[in-house]
Amino acid sequence: MKDAIVVLSGGMDSTAALYWTIDNWGGSDNVAAISFDYGQRHKKELQHARRTCMSLGVQHYLVDITTITSLLGGSALTDDIEVPEGHYEEENMKATVVPNRNSIMSNIAIGLVVSQKAEALVLGVHSGDHAIYPDCRPAFIAQLENLAHAANEGFIQEHFSIQAPWLYALKMDIVRAGEELGVSWEQTWTCYKGGEIHCGRCATCVERLEAFDQASVVDPVTYEDRDYWRTVVSN
Amino acid sequence: MKDAIVVLSGGMDSTAALYWTIDNWGGSDNVAAISFDYGQRHKKELQHARRTCMSLGVQHYLVDITTITSLLGGSALTDDIEVPEGHYEEENMKATVVPNRNSIMSNIAIGLVVSQKAEALVLGVHSGDHAIYPDCRPAFIAQLENLAHAANEGFIQEHFSIQAPWLYALKMDIVRAGEELGVSWEQTWTCYKGGEIHCGRCATCVERLEAFDQASVVDPVTYEDRDYWRTVVSN
Repeated sequence: MKDAIVVLSGGMDSTAALYWTIDNWGGSDNVAAISFDYGQRHKKELQHARRTCMSLGVQHYLVDITTITSLLGGSALTDDIEVPEGHYEEENMKATVVPNRNSIMSNIAIGLVVSQKAEALVLGVHSGDHAIYPDCRPAFIAQLENLAHAANEGFIQEHFSIQAPWLYALKMDIVRAGEELGVSWEQTWTCYKGGEIHCGRCATCVERLEAFDQASVVDPVTYEDRDYWRTVVSN
Repeated sequence: MKDAIVVLSGGMDSTAALYWTIDNWGGSDNVAAISFDYGQRHKKELQHARRTCMSLGVQHYLVDITTITSLLGGSALTDDIEVPEGHYEEENMKATVVPNRNSIMSNIAIGLVVSQKAEALVLGVHSGDHAIYPDCRPAFIAQLENLAHAANEGFIQEHFSIQAPWLYALKMDIVRAGEELGVSWEQTWTCYKGGEIHCGRCATCVERLEAFDQASVVDPVTYEDRDYWRTVVSN
């Protein structure tokens, strides 16, 4: 039995959300994390999720949902479509949308919430995702919570809620909050290309480097190209 | 591209819903069905779903989600817990609840709706399920539709809706409607025990036999014990 379940991609937002959850729910014994293999080419993030959980003493569930995403197809994150470079908020990031992805993952996590009798599901979505991904917006979070109660009445805790601590935060705010929480950024993985080290050129690398810079924190991970982001952001 | 997606278990309610959908969406070419292997011991229903789709010329997707349900566990439908006998509406049917099952399956189906640009998702839930399964109630259907729109804004048809033609129907009403639609009942599978033929004693067999009797229709499937249901229902 766990009090809070965190959806953990292995990236910086959800990893910081995991630290936040441990801090708010009385320690790592009361918390579990769930990660999904959805056929992402940056599968490397899952090893990082696993390592973070091991180092924090958090129970970790890894669920293979590739049978589902291969059915849905059509995203640059899973298929043979080029990962967009450049700035994160551009129109071309829509190529990275996996149909209904967060609903599917969150509802699987809610199944775990019910079986663990947990009182909270924690998601690492943040305001920078709102423009591109409808399933990261406040309306999505509210409707997901409504559905969880309707679908599991009598089986879910009455005070169950979905917590999204970064829902109105900028990426740089997450860096600042994560610093206070003592997040090991070097254990997080962001790059959508999933190579040996972070590329520094894909839109998520650019967004990450910009956020660390804005927060005046040095990002400890190694990049192939640590300075490319400046040329994109200044445009 | 399909106009309507039907969640098809292979049982009588969803099979009748598939016939209803073909009738309302201009033929089988415009319709696809999706079925789930969630580790149910009555996996036989999936062969029946497949056969129904083949005979109707409907595209059929079968998705293996056993990695998910093995994570959630604890249901008599999937685990080594005895399937309850007797009348369907009794308290012991709660042993057959799989945590958040219909939310998970429906949200995968909504992913397919988005990728197929469909305008409807059709579910075969009916009023007899309301007492036991919260994820078959009108509130669930309404919230699921809300979530689908919130999670996929800009990617889902604006007039997308969830259709549940049997939502307020009794099981016997489905038998009557199915007769009008020409449903091949012998191609449906109901028994939760999943043996060679229908057992006639498990709660779903009892419910089915009672419904056919109330509708004054002869159920063409073969039962091990075709008369047991009368002893339960008269109690």
